Amino acid sequence: MRKRQLLLSLLAVPMLALAGEVASPNGNVKVKFYCDAQGRPTYEMTYKDRPVVLPSHLGLELAKDKHASFGLNETDLMDRFEIKKEETSTFDETWRPVWGETATIRNHYNELAVTLGRQWQEVRSAEGGAIGQNIRFYERTILIRFRVYDDGIGFRYEFPQQQNLNYFLIKEERSEFRMAGDHTAWWLPGDYDTQEQETQQTKLSEIRARMQQAVNWGNSSVAVFSPTGVQTSLQMKSDDGLYINIHEAACADYATMHLELVDAQTKALTTELGGGSNAYTPNPAPSDWPLPQPLTFVSHLTPDATGLKGAMQTPCETPWRTVMVSDDARDMLSSNLILNLNEPCALDDTSWIHPTKYCGVWWEMIVGKSSWNYTDEFPSIKLDNIDWQKVKPNGRHAANNEKVKRYIDFAAKNGLDEVLVEGWNVGWEDWANMWKRDVFDFQTPYPDFDIKMLNDYAHSKGVKLLMHHETSSSTQNYERHMEKAFQLMNRYGYDAVKTGYVGDIIPRGDHHYSQSMNNHYLYVVKEAAKHHIMVNAHEATRPTGLCRTYPNLVGNESARGTEYEAFGGSRPDHTCILPFTRLQGGPMDYTPGIFVTRLKEWSNNDSWARITIAGSLALYLTMYSPLQMAADLPEHYERFDDAFQFIRDVACDWDESIYLEAEPADYITVARKAKGTDNWFIGGKCDENGHEAVVKLDFLDKDRKYECTIYQDAKDAHYETNPQAYVITKKTVKAGQTLKIKEAPGGGFAVSLMAL
Amino acid sequence: MRKRQLLLSLLAVPMLALAGEVASPNGNVKVKFYCDAQGRPTYEMTYKDRPVVLPSHLGLELAKDKHASFGLNETDLMDRFEIKKEETSTFDETWRPVWGETATIRNHYNELAVTLGRQWQEVRSAEGGAIGQNIRFYERTILIRFRVYDDGIGFRYEFPQQQNLNYFLIKEERSEFRMAGDHTAWWLPGDYDTQEQETQQTKLSEIRARMQQAVNWGNSSVAVFSPTGVQTSLQMKSDDGLYINIHEAACADYATMHLELVDAQTKALTTELGGGSNAYTPNPAPSDWPLPQPLTFVSHLTPDATGLKGAMQTPCETPWRTVMVSDDARDMLSSNLILNLNEPCALDDTSWIHPTKYCGVWWEMIVGKSSWNYTDEFPSIKLDNIDWQKVKPNGRHAANNEKVKRYIDFAAKNGLDEVLVEGWNVGWEDWANMWKRDVFDFQTPYPDFDIKMLNDYAHSKGVKLLMHHETSSSTQNYERHMEKAFQLMNRYGYDAVKTGYVGDIIPRGDHHYSQSMNNHYLYVVKEAAKHHIMVNAHEATRPTGLCRTYPNLVGNESARGTEYEAFGGSRPDHTCILPFTRLQGGPMDYTPGIFVTRLKEWSNNDSWARITIAGSLALYLTMYSPLQMAADLPEHYERFDDAFQFIRDVACDWDESIYLEAEPADYITVARKAKGTDNWFIGGKCDENGHEAVVKLDFLDKDRKYECTIYQDAKDAHYETNPQAYVITKKTVKAGQTLKIKEAPGGGFAVSLMAL
Repeated sequence: MRKRQLLLSLLAVPMLALAGEVASPNGNVKVKFYCDAQGRPTYEMTYKDRPVVLPSHLGLELAKDKHASFGLNETDLMDRFEIKKEETSTFDETWRPVWGETATIRNHYNELAVTLGRQWQEVRSAEGGAIGQNIRFYERTILIRFRVYDDGIGFRYEFPQQQNLNYFLIKEERSEFRMAGDHTAWWLPGDYDTQEQETQQTKLSEIRARMQQAVNWGNSSVAVFSPTGVQTSLQMKSDDGLYINIHEAACADYATMHLELVDAQTKALTTELGGGSNAYTPNPAPSDWPLPQPLTFVSHLTPDATGLKGAMQTPCETPWRTVMVSDDARDMLSSNLILNLNEPCALDDTSWIHPTKYCGVWWEMIVGKSSWNYTDEFPSIKLDNIDWQKVKPNGRHAANNEKVKRYIDFAAKNGLDEVLVEGWNVGWEDWANMWKRDVFDFQTPYPDFDIKMLNDYAHSKGVKLLMHHETSSSTQNYERHMEKAFQLMNRYGYDAVKTGYVGDIIPRGDHHYSQSMNNHYLYVVKEAAKHHIMVNAHEATRPTGLCRTYPNLVGNESARGTEYEAFGGSRPDHTCILPFTRLQGGPMDYTPGIFVTRLKEWSNNDSWARITIAGSLALYLTMYSPLQMAADLPEHYERFDDAFQFIRDVACDWDESIYLEAEPADYITVARKAKGTDNWFIGGKCDENGHEAVVKLDFLDKDRKYECTIYQDAKDAHYETNPQAYVITKKTVKAGQTLKIKEAPGGGFAVSLMAL
Repeated sequence: MRKRQLLLSLLAVPMLALAGEVASPNGNVKVKFYCDAQGRPTYEMTYKDRPVVLPSHLGLELAKDKHASFGLNETDLMDRFEIKKEETSTFDETWRPVWGETATIRNHYNELAVTLGRQWQEVRSAEGGAIGQNIRFYERTILIRFRVYDDGIGFRYEFPQQQNLNYFLIKEERSEFRMAGDHTAWWLPGDYDTQEQETQQTKLSEIRARMQQAVNWGNSSVAVFSPTGVQTSLQMKSDDGLYINIHEAACADYATMHLELVDAQTKALTTELGGGSNAYTPNPAPSDWPLPQPLTFVSHLTPDATGLKGAMQTPCETPWRTVMVSDDARDMLSSNLILNLNEPCALDDTSWIHPTKYCGVWWEMIVGKSSWNYTDEFPSIKLDNIDWQKVKPNGRHAANNEKVKRYIDFAAKNGLDEVLVEGWNVGWEDWANMWKRDVFDFQTPYPDFDIKMLNDYAHSKGVKLLMHHETSSSTQNYERHMEKAFQLMNRYGYDAVKTGYVGDIIPRGDHHYSQSMNNHYLYVVKEAAKHHIMVNAHEATRPTGLCRTYPNLVGNESARGTEYEAFGGSRPDHTCILPFTRLQGGPMDYTPGIFVTRLKEWSNNDSWARITIAGSLALYLTMYSPLQMAADLPEHYERFDDAFQFIRDVACDWDESIYLEAEPADYITVARKAKGTDNWFIGGKCDENGHEAVVKLDFLDKDRKYECTIYQDAKDAHYETNPQAYVITKKTVKAGQTLKIKEAPGGGFAVSLMAL
């Protein structure tokens, strides 16, 4: 290699006065874009002329790449930019989701696309020459695209293919969101590996003080990176009543974004964990970039095992960064902004994708009454070394023929489509928290689970089994077995799989929300689609609307689900927050429907669910999902069969959805019209303070009458002291009437309106 | 989680006087084992009562594991051991390799298996109690097994399944090899990602001073970790004429071992690169363990992306650590110790595995005259976005129908079994050094490579094509495509694949020789076996005899191969060292046979091969491999067709092999009897100083005569000035005669002895 001396110096760029501005179709939302005096890309956002995002910078910091050829190890994509071109356009189309809250979705926005150029020069001595003899100029072009909707904006970075920007490594994305006030925020501690914490509600300025408590809460944090780092989707409310939500859309082969708040005490932005590889040491941390103003969120991506945030090849683009806004909280819930920012459906045939109601052999293991594993005989197991016919059963294995048949019978009798069975396959003896690579083969049933017989039995009753693939986060192992696992599913007639990613990732050192893991999750969805398999991924990264493009991604967990009711419980307002936060990116397999909330009644578990039965019914409406579980035991539903009637009746796919009432962490009331029918269902859920819902039935067909069944909390119902007190009333109603329904503390209500 | 206070303290272990000793079957090699005053496992090794390994300690340092339950985060497996049991035994069997240097191999050793126990106690306060109230004792058991052969020893650690040692993480293995003198050593800089450097020859005490030069040499080092770190197999010679070799055997799901020399300047053992994950921070480096005596090698394993050296589950064991010894250098070459320490063949059917002579579309790309890639049109490509029928060819693509047919014709005419074709599949446009994940699909041929036609054409002439899978070290991508890639091979009739691992590993942060990568290489071999495919893995970890267990692993590169003759060249003594070092663990696909050594004669490449034509012929004998390439261009062989006759004739599988002369880095002479025949072939290779070989033909059948053809350097031949000067003589010989053959500087000779 030739010796060379290298100096990089920045060119003085002549600043142009160019600035772009674009308003939403109704004019309520406006975005202004310009480069500031240092050439930093800068944007501002308003809603009805009130500030939503104060002037904030955009840019990325690249990592040095040992592979980059001479002159191309410039790492700054933050300043010295010049606006090269601005283009505005309008888009308006209406599309039909394969499943969803509405039959059609309008995608209507105005767009501003700004092309930015950045030059730098490199001065080096030629072999034997003097410094300055050999000067070369380089230029890179990036593009920032804004789409402005009536309920918010999306923007992203685009990197065209070009000689001087071909492959690059991301040290950090530096997208800023400078808030206009000290808003109230509903937030989770930023974490590279979990999003199952309880939501915190504080002012922005109080995040730092609350962080330690938030992290300790329920012991569910894993890899927290900053005292002011939070997750998206982040719901906020300003003192003057603006609802603002920051999230992202279409995060596919890119790291999941967190937000790090610059507050009065911030001295430096927390970078990452330190590189693990000698090949790449991208972190001369902390970055010497100047801190933005206080109350500014800065993007913070999830690193991979090397500490890098992304490895990119042009042409490419980042996910959309979204800021939703309204002065009406209901608009936060009815917004389709994130779905609209995703690409159209990529599957030619979607006829095999169907909304699904299911029950499953699951809750009794979560509660601890029975086990996923078949034997307790060994301190650990190696799959190749065990003769499962000869091992000693522990007598607590739930996924046995008798029990599964019981669930199949229950599903068939109650019109449920599928039965999930967890613990059907060998490997559960030491599956969790061992960082074990070869943990499951996804092929071999336990001896007491007759896979052929049970599938045949289910099919004979019009029911399907729902497959379960816990990966234990050994994604390498899963990818090795996946094709054969899907073939097995096809062979026996499964059409949906619940996947799981509990524990530390293998390949070791990686994180749940890194670029490579996000690629893995989508790889699974795409491979599953080839086999006509629907995917419901648990512990995977939080959704960002990719279900528009891959509608076989019918569900995700990616938040604190019902299982936590058996792990100490969740607060009563939890489900009044999730629709504003977690559900923005796509449906959650929340697994509602716990009727016997005191687990002690039937197990040794002291935990209890902070919800009434009527509240549980409401979740089938307020927590939209095309995949809805009836999570409690069949015998519990049989005890409350009149209430269970609502779960039998309720749809899980919709032609229309109308959010009637909403306030984050307080209450949500929604009416939905079942797909292809004139039947409506209404759900209302409230927090620990109770609520009186006022439901004007003006959405009903004016020419029809409806048989109305109301499932509501009894007068003395209470999530703690009297959760099973409900009242069911029936009457005939018509359009224009008003229902006033009292919801108990931690309660709710459900209504079915069957067209007569 | 309950709060607890934790103190670990070591028990005073009553030291037992137990000590074990075991000698090899002929008594030449002896091993003594005991625990020293600190309870450190200690061994010594002698050869004919001369010291080979002075008292050296054994042990492992574990990493703290956040998953370990209370009391089980004790990380010391180094001292305070007590000998619990000693067992000695004898083993003697003769087995038949599927292919090899001899028809049968005798595995004869005496064994000493020592069971060691280590107790520790943990003192903690109970909830509210005083410290000391709650004491628990723990014990772990490990086993160290020695096998003592007449030509060396192997030992390994075994970890039985037990309550207190179930899953564990290795921070470092601390196996010591204390040398008895300042030996001459032939070494490569220790490196986590390459073994393609030139060998250094120095005294042990000179390693540190030579390291920087060694690392710079030819720019081939990638991830060097210590100023005294070297690779195995490490060949040494003592001042009093003992040949000593340290390597390992049966390294499967474990990190590759390097050796770090403690010399007079060593202040601390270099640990690793720093953890990349917050989940595991195993490195309070440097270790505070006391340094051993100078001139002691200490094992240094290859880390993964987190800096960890291994994740283990009991029952398990380490690879064998081997020390070969003799006072005759030829014994180093004829030893089967490493193969013997591997497990017997794991494949039921090996009928499809066959030694192979091949040529290939390869050397002209290495030299730079033609290209692997088909087009130069794009700065980079994404496989999904290219219509290969429409791109502009660069006109230099070698793997085209016409050229491949030419090679097939050449192979058919000359009795070569297969034709390797590199660059047949799309993706070569930006395959290397981009850290690109989705780099190849291993499915799609370039438009000018008609895969069906070419395979049909080859088969019609009794020849097979040899598949090529360059992974660009994106093992994740390879594992995703491998099954379909093997299916494609089966479909078209390929039965062997050359794999490649150029560049940085994906999953990012991992290293070529880590536990996870070693698992990957073997995974490929096992999956290939299911498809009856032989594997020849380049840039993979150095072999450790696993080809005994998986004989479809017919070759590896794992050292500086012939390609370096086009990258600046290798020293003339290079091939007189490799059989002592790299070849100890298994055959190398060295790709010999360069006849036109001055590349400038037919290309723009200034490099030249430092070897004569007669020397090139010798390599087919001295560099044992069941896979032998004739690497030069057909037209070059046609120019020297009389010399090429030897390559046509020479076998590549053997019933018998006799090393006649040997001295590391000087010369090697070997005679081999072709499998299932009475024909013998002899090869002699020397360094830059020339050599006169004296070959007593006393191994021939006394009742037969042989047609003897001698290919030798002409009198004035020289690797630099006159490499193509050779003389071919024919005569009839019989047992008892002696051949005296002069080898030119950088030359050699080859002899065929056809039984009459």
